[in-house]
Amino acid sequence: MTKVLRHIVLFSFKDTSSADDIQGVVKAFANLKNEIDEIHDFEWGTDVSVENIQQGFTHCFQVTFLSEADRDAYLPHPAHKAFGETLQPHLDQVLVVDYWAQDSA
Amino acid sequence: MTKVLRHIVLFSFKDTSSADDIQGVVKAFANLKNEIDEIHDFEWGTDVSVENIQQGFTHCFQVTFLSEADRDAYLPHPAHKAFGETLQPHLDQVLVVDYWAQDSA
Repeated sequence: MTKVLRHIVLFSFKDTSSADDIQGVVKAFANLKNEIDEIHDFEWGTDVSVENIQQGFTHCFQVTFLSEADRDAYLPHPAHKAFGETLQPHLDQVLVVDYWAQDSA
Repeated sequence: MTKVLRHIVLFSFKDTSSADDIQGVVKAFANLKNEIDEIHDFEWGTDVSVENIQQGFTHCFQVTFLSEADRDAYLPHPAHKAFGETLQPHLDQVLVVDYWAQDSA
């Protein structure tokens, strides 16, 4: 198993934000992988869980890095900061966890 | 990109639960991939994020399925139910989101 650092980001959006607004945020987030070399992998999707314990979150993004140094370069990167400007007016809740992926206990 | 359904599970544990208790939960969760054929992939890790918006969560688990039918077989599976019994006394917070992984907006 390749040693990878997962950066899991959950969002919910304001009731006042339109589908187009939210699509713009997703597009801007997805585009970061073209702007920030340290992003090793990116994926996202909208919640389709059936247990009803998503705690209000509707969108999940998974950014994968190969080192904490790469994650630390990503966070203050100008393109990431610009994304934050796009996001901010529409953001309701946010949650972020990072973990080094292991396959066994 | 293979079409995969991610099942992201976040836990925090009770203050009264010991490191051994928590290790037991992680071990039981990791062992589900040996007991439930529908699990396509499994990984986990403890939070090492630096943004301080993990909202109290300390552990992240990622279970990957190839279909909603497989996820729907997993949820009520006896081995998953037994894991729930191991987890319950130690669980503080839980959050689950599922999403179909996409690589662009």
